Amino acid sequence: MAKLMSLLWGAGSPPCWRVMITLEEKKLQGYKRKLLSFEKGEHKSQEVLEVNPRGQLPAFKHGDIILNESCATCLYLENQFKSQGIKLIPDSAEDQAVMYQRMMEGLALTDKLNSVIYYDCSVPEEERHDSAVKRNKEALTAELKLWEGYLENVSAGSYLAGAFSLADVIVFPSIACAFRFGLSVGRYPKLAKYYSLLKNRASIKTTWPPHWVASPQGYDILKDL
Amino acid sequence: MAKLMSLLWGAGSPPCWRVMITLEEKKLQGYKRKLLSFEKGEHKSQEVLEVNPRGQLPAFKHGDIILNESCATCLYLENQFKSQGIKLIPDSAEDQAVMYQRMMEGLALTDKLNSVIYYDCSVPEEERHDSAVKRNKEALTAELKLWEGYLENVSAGSYLAGAFSLADVIVFPSIACAFRFGLSVGRYPKLAKYYSLLKNRASIKTTWPPHWVASPQGYDILKDL
Repeated sequence: MAKLMSLLWGAGSPPCWRVMITLEEKKLQGYKRKLLSFEKGEHKSQEVLEVNPRGQLPAFKHGDIILNESCATCLYLENQFKSQGIKLIPDSAEDQAVMYQRMMEGLALTDKLNSVIYYDCSVPEEERHDSAVKRNKEALTAELKLWEGYLENVSAGSYLAGAFSLADVIVFPSIACAFRFGLSVGRYPKLAKYYSLLKNRASIKTTWPPHWVASPQGYDILKDL
Repeated sequence: MAKLMSLLWGAGSPPCWRVMITLEEKKLQGYKRKLLSFEKGEHKSQEVLEVNPRGQLPAFKHGDIILNESCATCLYLENQFKSQGIKLIPDSAEDQAVMYQRMMEGLALTDKLNSVIYYDCSVPEEERHDSAVKRNKEALTAELKLWEGYLENVSAGSYLAGAFSLADVIVFPSIACAFRFGLSVGRYPKLAKYYSLLKNRASIKTTWPPHWVASPQGYDILKDL
């Protein structure tokens, strides 16, 4: 099955990483993959635009079926390969509700991280304001505290919704990014524990961003949060 | 079942509307609901914060289960009540892929609409720039053209992914907002046809924002797009 699949991806992008973790968990190794460079603007290349008119990564194909949006791709793969590999959507109403809830809230976390980490890349110089930077940092701090609280209340183990699930697939890459960009282990102990547990999971270790392996030293943009 | 459900909602909010359409389609009428006012800041009230620490609507409860994120709530309701009412997730791999893809892309449409419609509400006066307004409008125009193209290519009927599905549930309220805020019927004929077909669907008509019924005249913010 995986032989019919192909993925255009960019390293360190949480949306790409989510799809790669899902493919590992669903035992869909052996798919074709091609690493593209955001720095060189390869995500805007004709090759990508043919699969994804938004010029964004991931761009995933399963035979003639095209999926470009990371959550959509993960939901599709789980539903099409339910009985293969790890089950990523729990059955019980309680766990399923938390799973969908955290999965979708994970997109707010990613947005708020991006609004701080990539502020200078996404806002033209003449439109930048210290007040906006301050507000974005406050919003991200509030967001991170919510997640610290969610993990505080996790009763059944250390995952976001019972067993390892799509919630972890979607959210973990953003938590990893937060620590890569300098989040304090001391001020966010639950997030740090979660990060430290999941980073050694096989599907995550195998798909770890190659340039993070090559240069383990991260950045300090988030150190004061 | 619906007797155990309650919804705090705000009128005209696409996320709230999605949940209400889903409840209708799944034959879950009879749930408790309470309309709150965004203008009066009631979405930041203690009543909401107890259910949704983000202070946003919808805030939904099913017994002790809490769901605040609209896509998560719709996915949960469809999966918990699969055989009740209309089936909102198609079985075939092709339709299912398009369904998840459009559903998730719908969130980009909502964001881009909000960045134009609510620019003045969300950006403090001293941080506003004509260049940002122009860029947001261009991004929204490109987004709307994508959707016009998706509907151009819909082969099996007039819905986004085969039969009526969660993709329509998630996306329609934003399309309705776009026309409410002045989108040109002439320049977006496929979107206009889609809007005109779906607005008479029972689940949508029943949940139409009450203040839109009371004042059918909309706004013209998007008229030049």
